[in-house]
Amino acid sequence: MLRASANALARRASARSLSSVAAKYFPSEPAHPQLVTPAIPGPKSIQLNNDLGEKFDNRATYFVADYKNSLGNYISDADGNKLLDVYCQIASIGLGYNNPALIEAAKSDEMVYALIDRPALACFPSTTYKEILEDGILAAAPPSMSRVWTALSGSDANETAYKAAFMYQHAKLRGDQDFSSEELTSVMDNATPGASEMKILSFDKGFHGRLFGSLSTTRSKAIHKLDIPAFQWPKAPFPKLKYPLDEFATENHAEELACLEAFEDILSQHKGASKVAAIIVEPVQAEGGDNHASSFFFQGLRDITIKHDVLMIVDEVQTGVGATGKMWAHEHWNLTTPPDMVTFSKKFQAAGFYYSNPQLQPNQPYRQFNTWCGDPSKAIIAKTIYQEIVKNDLVTRTAAVGDYLYGGLQLLASKYPAHIKNLRGENFGTFIAWDCRDAGARNEILIKCRDRGVNVGGCGDMAIRMRPTLTFEEKHANVFLQVLEDVLNYM
Amino acid sequence: MLRASANALARRASARSLSSVAAKYFPSEPAHPQLVTPAIPGPKSIQLNNDLGEKFDNRATYFVADYKNSLGNYISDADGNKLLDVYCQIASIGLGYNNPALIEAAKSDEMVYALIDRPALACFPSTTYKEILEDGILAAAPPSMSRVWTALSGSDANETAYKAAFMYQHAKLRGDQDFSSEELTSVMDNATPGASEMKILSFDKGFHGRLFGSLSTTRSKAIHKLDIPAFQWPKAPFPKLKYPLDEFATENHAEELACLEAFEDILSQHKGASKVAAIIVEPVQAEGGDNHASSFFFQGLRDITIKHDVLMIVDEVQTGVGATGKMWAHEHWNLTTPPDMVTFSKKFQAAGFYYSNPQLQPNQPYRQFNTWCGDPSKAIIAKTIYQEIVKNDLVTRTAAVGDYLYGGLQLLASKYPAHIKNLRGENFGTFIAWDCRDAGARNEILIKCRDRGVNVGGCGDMAIRMRPTLTFEEKHANVFLQVLEDVLNYM
Repeated sequence: MLRASANALARRASARSLSSVAAKYFPSEPAHPQLVTPAIPGPKSIQLNNDLGEKFDNRATYFVADYKNSLGNYISDADGNKLLDVYCQIASIGLGYNNPALIEAAKSDEMVYALIDRPALACFPSTTYKEILEDGILAAAPPSMSRVWTALSGSDANETAYKAAFMYQHAKLRGDQDFSSEELTSVMDNATPGASEMKILSFDKGFHGRLFGSLSTTRSKAIHKLDIPAFQWPKAPFPKLKYPLDEFATENHAEELACLEAFEDILSQHKGASKVAAIIVEPVQAEGGDNHASSFFFQGLRDITIKHDVLMIVDEVQTGVGATGKMWAHEHWNLTTPPDMVTFSKKFQAAGFYYSNPQLQPNQPYRQFNTWCGDPSKAIIAKTIYQEIVKNDLVTRTAAVGDYLYGGLQLLASKYPAHIKNLRGENFGTFIAWDCRDAGARNEILIKCRDRGVNVGGCGDMAIRMRPTLTFEEKHANVFLQVLEDVLNYM
Repeated sequence: MLRASANALARRASARSLSSVAAKYFPSEPAHPQLVTPAIPGPKSIQLNNDLGEKFDNRATYFVADYKNSLGNYISDADGNKLLDVYCQIASIGLGYNNPALIEAAKSDEMVYALIDRPALACFPSTTYKEILEDGILAAAPPSMSRVWTALSGSDANETAYKAAFMYQHAKLRGDQDFSSEELTSVMDNATPGASEMKILSFDKGFHGRLFGSLSTTRSKAIHKLDIPAFQWPKAPFPKLKYPLDEFATENHAEELACLEAFEDILSQHKGASKVAAIIVEPVQAEGGDNHASSFFFQGLRDITIKHDVLMIVDEVQTGVGATGKMWAHEHWNLTTPPDMVTFSKKFQAAGFYYSNPQLQPNQPYRQFNTWCGDPSKAIIAKTIYQEIVKNDLVTRTAAVGDYLYGGLQLLASKYPAHIKNLRGENFGTFIAWDCRDAGARNEILIKCRDRGVNVGGCGDMAIRMRPTLTFEEKHANVFLQVLEDVLNYM
């Protein structure tokens, strides 16, 4: 406890040395939640949602939001409540609501053309698309990655990466030979050898999307997968680390070694035309419960994939774009060889996968292809987000504010150990989570936080995850920590 | 030939009775193509595309477009050429380039919020989403369809429809029972009974997208499918009609009966937990070569699906939103029972599937779910497109202009029978196509048309397809027909 307090104080000092970007962006941002109804959703939210439900499946609605009146880190609801938002549209609001830089981008002529003259990008790209990519998505690329294939969502990004992996591996197997007539015929019946028997390996508790290919690699919860056909692709164990990490260093290392061994066993079992074409892994398994592993584990994965000539796809759909205190979470690992592909979406609004090896482009056009191949309007948003991140050093700030927040949660964990367990995400920016006593307690805490003006999300079976914007600062952390303490006091 | 001429004259008269909406929208629209380089792509297009190619797979590029200087039915390229566009971003530009109504929508405050505060729609829908849907996507819904699930692309729309179908069919099988523990466990390993063995049936030459589930139903060309894993789902034959239709009425009817019989045989072969959950069919198989079938055939499909308790999904991604002279192409069929789901994208910019039966919503939230569940910025575009369609009666106009264009093509077909074969799409708006002598001749015609200032697209093995905007009028058809005749003269 003493150590936690000292850390917290040091972190507090570091965060304070930065001037407020939020104040610059959002001079009228509320200083604290403003509540006008005793519970959330309030009556107007409920009425609007009931009406919407006659047209659109909205049974997962938390509340109906008034985006016009949302600002910065505060989301307004239909009743006029203003909540501090640390969930942020499932981790996808980067610069805060109604950020003036984004308003400017949205009102630009460039955006108007992108919106109303939407191109089939791979047939009729605009004169400006290269520049939009270079100044935005590609400027933000992970080290060593110089190319991108743009998509529309995280699922789409992952599935196009899978397709690139399958075509790459089959091209290697095929060598200089052309497609055989048997391949050309069989594929029209979805049969081998034209249709692939290769596989994408994913990890227990991983989440990679909900379309048919991505859902086959998603292993988060049964409810995400039930009744949907799935490919017979293998699943490897993901380390189950114990906290605090320094107390369980030996056990955790053994756990990671065992997982690496099991992983390599699976790769060894699939060879040739039915090999594992690629693995996909999240730097932190977000939907699955914010499960972390060490850099040692990820370096081990990379080494084994290279040994077995399997591609490594890092799914940065949720971890990417600064929240972990690095632009891309896998930069924390200092891999000796970079991953083959890195996928992104959410906070960047634009989606796609980065790569560097030109052989990840299939041997002919129209193989990796679709009508839109991305969306310039989202690429313009991504460009603006990236430029604001650089201008305001938002990743460094997020690292510092994350440390501050983590320190505060350490203090609360020492005070309420039954309610804040396995605190994780130290030195990982604001990408922080902890376990509650059980699912019921977790859900109760989420609801009570919301009723006190903080919108926070869960993940996994009993975890609460922090997913604030990159303009979340010490003052917002203080509001959050105070509300959380109030709630835990009553649990 | 005489009959063709008479038809053409009658059609010409009908189209002329409408005043020009294009002139109202686009007073400065070119009267004919404006060419500044001898061939397309010109040198600037080539240079820009080479530069882009270092970052983005652009080997399918026709030319680099200058959208700022495109207007109405004319697309400008990087070199300053202005081409009449009858391909329109693979059938996805509805109202013409830089339509003033869309500019206004793009500059609205509503659009700004939609772009920069993008919601997770199924958790935090906006106060305005219901209205945006009601005034746009839902106002445009096919007869009897009152609900929508929004998505991001045609592939996404189809795959979410498939998911709805699988969950619906398993719910019927399961009855009142809860998920079994075996289902809950097995699904995490992608195994039955938790993962479904049911199937989506599609048709030979159909195209339904390129993600893993949709690609398994796509049967257009080998190059779309090679090296990608596919589900073992069945394929039924699609009628191969002979033209002119009235000459081959008996043969075509027999062909459709044989296809229906084969179709029912396949449904009969799959029962219970491995049944066909749904079929998906396009009103015209567009990518596969603009293959038509009669209303009799589609009514037959509907009757057989009902008999076998199989859902019918109509894929209107390319046929929808007016181009066929009806808002939705399947309205041509006058089905006695409407389809279960209708998917849309492309010309609507927004994507998704329509339905009416509330049981197509799964029994619990978070089953049909993803982060964004659509995109309000696209829904606003769709709303504007629909309102302009209604205001200017653009579907009726497209029916008339399509008749005019068809008449013109009939005349050319009688003059150049080796180059315009199997003309199809009569009474189907501007959704018209024909076969060339072979693939080589088709590609040559496409290139020569482009070099003479008309951007036109192919489909299938040797077809040319018309996919102009809904503001394509008699004057544009005249330009097109003249250029085509010039090209055919030199073939």
